[in-house]
Amino acid sequence: MKLNSRLNELARDDIFLKVTNKVAEYKKNNPDKKVISLGIGDVSKPIIQPVISAMHRAVDDLSDMKTFKGYGSYYGYDFLKDAILKNDYKGFSFSKDEIYISNGTKTDTTSILELFDIDSKICLTDPMYPIYKDGATCLNRRIVEIKLKEENDFVPEIPKEKYDIVYMCSPSNPIGIAYNRLELQKWIDYALANEAIILFDNVYSSFIQSSDVPTSIYELPNAKKVAIEFRSFSKNASFTGVRCSYYIIPNEISKNINRIWKERTINRFNGADYIAQRGAEAVYLPESQKLIQTNIEDYLDNASFLRRELLNLGFKVWGGIDSPFMWVKTTENMDSWNFFNLMLNDLNIVVIPGCIFEGNNSKYFRVSALGFRKDIEECVERLKAYYEKK
Amino acid sequence: MKLNSRLNELARDDIFLKVTNKVAEYKKNNPDKKVISLGIGDVSKPIIQPVISAMHRAVDDLSDMKTFKGYGSYYGYDFLKDAILKNDYKGFSFSKDEIYISNGTKTDTTSILELFDIDSKICLTDPMYPIYKDGATCLNRRIVEIKLKEENDFVPEIPKEKYDIVYMCSPSNPIGIAYNRLELQKWIDYALANEAIILFDNVYSSFIQSSDVPTSIYELPNAKKVAIEFRSFSKNASFTGVRCSYYIIPNEISKNINRIWKERTINRFNGADYIAQRGAEAVYLPESQKLIQTNIEDYLDNASFLRRELLNLGFKVWGGIDSPFMWVKTTENMDSWNFFNLMLNDLNIVVIPGCIFEGNNSKYFRVSALGFRKDIEECVERLKAYYEKK
Repeated sequence: MKLNSRLNELARDDIFLKVTNKVAEYKKNNPDKKVISLGIGDVSKPIIQPVISAMHRAVDDLSDMKTFKGYGSYYGYDFLKDAILKNDYKGFSFSKDEIYISNGTKTDTTSILELFDIDSKICLTDPMYPIYKDGATCLNRRIVEIKLKEENDFVPEIPKEKYDIVYMCSPSNPIGIAYNRLELQKWIDYALANEAIILFDNVYSSFIQSSDVPTSIYELPNAKKVAIEFRSFSKNASFTGVRCSYYIIPNEISKNINRIWKERTINRFNGADYIAQRGAEAVYLPESQKLIQTNIEDYLDNASFLRRELLNLGFKVWGGIDSPFMWVKTTENMDSWNFFNLMLNDLNIVVIPGCIFEGNNSKYFRVSALGFRKDIEECVERLKAYYEKK
Repeated sequence: MKLNSRLNELARDDIFLKVTNKVAEYKKNNPDKKVISLGIGDVSKPIIQPVISAMHRAVDDLSDMKTFKGYGSYYGYDFLKDAILKNDYKGFSFSKDEIYISNGTKTDTTSILELFDIDSKICLTDPMYPIYKDGATCLNRRIVEIKLKEENDFVPEIPKEKYDIVYMCSPSNPIGIAYNRLELQKWIDYALANEAIILFDNVYSSFIQSSDVPTSIYELPNAKKVAIEFRSFSKNASFTGVRCSYYIIPNEISKNINRIWKERTINRFNGADYIAQRGAEAVYLPESQKLIQTNIEDYLDNASFLRRELLNLGFKVWGGIDSPFMWVKTTENMDSWNFFNLMLNDLNIVVIPGCIFEGNNSKYFRVSALGFRKDIEECVERLKAYYEKK
């Protein structure tokens, strides 16, 4: 028995762990200090009441054989597919055959590689959400990274090389920027010309505010021929602990693509949780949509506040308009670990060092506006006091 | 973009679909006929009340930020790991580091291949639960099948060849037999001698009655050095729609195996559903264990009744003692499709043709005792009337 040697390439995770351990160690040695995290990627809003009620009803369904639900469809219940297609994909005329309900975009965006040839040339950017690269490694795929440049505002240039698969995350984690129509159309045209597939991670779509940013890639001409779009209920409906996601594979990509993917899915997945699917269905109730809109506005207000204050303090900031995330340049040309240490030790603020998302010597860090407003305000006060004193 | 050509090898699923379609067509053409399925692999008992209550409490936890649970551990909550280790693995001294909570054994038993070299020689039996083979195909692995023989009562012979990975399902789906200590020890010795890993699918462990059949492979000497055991809450706690499973990777297999698998899992899975995990925890309450025992006894009573009646009618029957499944030889040397058609058209009984689980020309079929007693009794009456008339 030989272990999969490719797994030895998974190094970045140690950095996440290193952050966690450093914070834990600091807290242990400084029990009197109040450490606040601006690194949080989880939500700070509980699940809204109409969704809670729907999940209670679903739990009750399971207590009686007359309403019990056992194995569901491998691809999700029709009630949820219908709700998603009618709401998120209204007017796109996708059929239920083209949508899959699943249990998390992390798994979906990497498992989808099973659909494509193992030797496919996969392209992604640096910095990037590390899961695509490391998930691809677990699945014995090889990836190529395109270095993003500050002078281009971290918008990637269209490659001259031919790739088979392109990962895109928009609104982006970690940069926090979203592709506008013009930029996105260039990628679609690239994919068409190169017979490439775009894996479009759109889990932050609810945060999109800019009028020139599409909420779905399918708003753009020809996207249905080249793009698989992934979304989830994690951030808008606070399902980070409940687990429910979905993705679209358009029939237009290739004749048998959905037949083949269904056969694959039968063999690899036994369907998403019934309770989660009933909860997700209730996300689309009019009363839910109102409550969710309020939550999203709160997060975006936090982002707007934090962005403004960081800019006022002289930081270079990207993102935070169509996303809860911001990518920020360190001061004094510090590398991201040094900046992390400074923030933790002197200001008791946790930021995510950029090196988690890109190669060595990152001079950036990620902050998030998903936390509580009062915590974000306190961080801003600490930053002001520190930088105004300097 | 090239699709993964290995997915073209997934042919068996069409047989499942063919069964479903044939049954649907028959029902459509014969709306007055009462078709009963003996093929059912799902449960017929609802979820017990203590588990329902725990899931209601978990739903309420999510409605308030004071008790909200977002992203959990990638490997499961400690409360559930503790409950499993204290109950199912009492006395085995596994640490929480060696257990993983997941969302279904179908995914677990195939995804685990990511831990091992892509060129590992994988061995499984024919007949076998088709997911291992087809899941391995989705993950670009190659498998070798050992043909099981009726004259050996479908117990596989220890291979002379060296394999890296051996799939075992015990109690077995579809055969319905379980390995006894003697047989299992031979496989453990084989694995030790050949540095192989046993992937031991033990999802039907609650059905084990025979005193010479271990409820965990780890009861046997050296199993901790070679075996990964998979279990779930699907059949004992009727979680087929809720999705919660678990598996053990013993540290004894190899020094870094759990460190490596944790790094892999961070990149491929965002944890199991919180509500499901709270429900699963409640499975181990004393009042739950009593109710579950009653359910399992009901299923086993059904199996015992069906087995006895099939034997009385002159069928050759395997399994049904430590399992809800039985593997039955067709009459008159019919192949399994012809027998399926006979049963459907003449007796309005659905059985699962053996060719789903083995190569062509299977002369066997699978029946299950997971259905309702009255339905099973009615099938027996129909079979009696048919065979006694002949």
